Amino acid sequence: MGRIVLVTGGARSGKSSHAEARVRAMPGAPVYIATSEPQDDEMRDRVARHRVARGPGWTLIEEPLDLVGALDRSDGAGPRLVDCLTLWLSNHMFAGRDWEPEAEALTAALLRQQAPVVLVSNEVGMGIVPENALARAFRDAQGWVNQRVAKVADEVEFVVSGLPLRVK
Amino acid sequence: MGRIVLVTGGARSGKSSHAEARVRAMPGAPVYIATSEPQDDEMRDRVARHRVARGPGWTLIEEPLDLVGALDRSDGAGPRLVDCLTLWLSNHMFAGRDWEPEAEALTAALLRQQAPVVLVSNEVGMGIVPENALARAFRDAQGWVNQRVAKVADEVEFVVSGLPLRVK
Amino acid sequence: MGRIVLVTGGARSGKSSHAEARVRAMPGAPVYIATSEPQDDEMRDRVARHRVARGPGWTLIEEPLDLVGALDRSDGAGPRLVDCLTLWLSNHMFAGRDWEPEAEALTAALLRQQAPVVLVSNEVGMGIVPENALARAFRDAQGWVNQRVAKVADEVEFVVSGLPLRVK
Repeated sequence: MGRIVLVTGGARSGKSSHAEARVRAMPGAPVYIATSEPQDDEMRDRVARHRVARGPGWTLIEEPLDLVGALDRSDGAGPRLVDCLTLWLSNHMFAGRDWEPEAEALTAALLRQQAPVVLVSNEVGMGIVPENALARAFRDAQGWVNQRVAKVADEVEFVVSGLPLRVK
Repeated sequence: MGRIVLVTGGARSGKSSHAEARVRAMPGAPVYIATSEPQDDEMRDRVARHRVARGPGWTLIEEPLDLVGALDRSDGAGPRLVDCLTLWLSNHMFAGRDWEPEAEALTAALLRQQAPVVLVSNEVGMGIVPENALARAFRDAQGWVNQRVAKVADEVEFVVSGLPLRVK
Repeated sequence: MGRIVLVTGGARSGKSSHAEARVRAMPGAPVYIATSEPQDDEMRDRVARHRVARGPGWTLIEEPLDLVGALDRSDGAGPRLVDCLTLWLSNHMFAGRDWEPEAEALTAALLRQQAPVVLVSNEVGMGIVPENALARAFRDAQGWVNQRVAKVADEVEFVVSGLPLRVK
């Protein structure tokens, strides 16, 4: 069974770069599973900069919602980087879909993968309680998703200032 | 003297479940000291779900403000879980009470307990500075309370994605 | 070459007190480089309380923008405490200056210091995405600055509830 690694941290903590380095160090041709849907210029700029930073040699899969399908279809081909669970979750919530069965399906899919998967996620619950109910719901959902993925992961790293702290 | 454990972490980080497991592993009948005052349906739902998750065998004490009294009155009966310092602090601040003498009284009370106490608290200071002055005051107060309790604690754990990082 | 230490953490996490203790434990007369510009009573109170808490024996340099100059001019005189990178960065951003070359100049300056430097910074990216575009830009910039300084630092500590977790 493939190794499952969760890399979590705050915004601009260096978690994606660290996760990319983890995947690059694994044998096989790396696959980048992007969950973003670039909807504005800020996002498009960020996606373009990330692509340049990763360098050549990656296969790109863009999949905003069906992460389970993307994992199953890419299994066997090399290590996968999922960047990131936060956008995947927010895509489900903004589409009005029920995220809980999706999260259960994701953990089940992770457990059946043959090739390794490194997943990037965000810490979003260490600020003041948001006034907005949707933001509160999102922060709760993100916390649950991180806990569930951490439970099935072989390794969990919390990134601070670009440096990983091993938590599992 | 009883063991004092502080369990801190973000919203939905798994800190309450971890703290409950710590208390359950201690000898004696566990006591749950709830500081919440369920004021809306979202909160009532959460309280009910937590009660089911904890399972039977717990003595429940509901005490939104007088945590010192609740600790002193329950001492000797088994390990106590205080869930959580964040609601206790916000109850004091919203009631217009001065939280600093309360925090001093709490640390003094912790030091005189015979039975163990596991306290849950939140990290609320790792987001952008809130625009609202009350939110800024709350975030400062929470940070001070966490520091003071950590100083008298025998153990401090920081929970990320359901996993504890030992900090003391 | 002098030792470079980055101390990061949330608001009211005890990071400044911890950083001050680190500097006090180093040989030589300590220098406090304050990047704040006290603009309101809340800030002035905080600065005055910090000054009392530090005690006598510190040389104070107030420098909201030219941190590179302050470091170069104070080099050789004893260990320096920079408190903090967050205010320094926000001073640059609010003055409409380009923070990226400033951050590059800062890391270059750190590498040429002879006397030690302990820098305090904030974690601001672990809450919900701010609605305000300037707040988002600030949070991204702070994350990058922390990563760059961490890269040239000899030690990085993440402070939780007044307690340091060593990350480098």
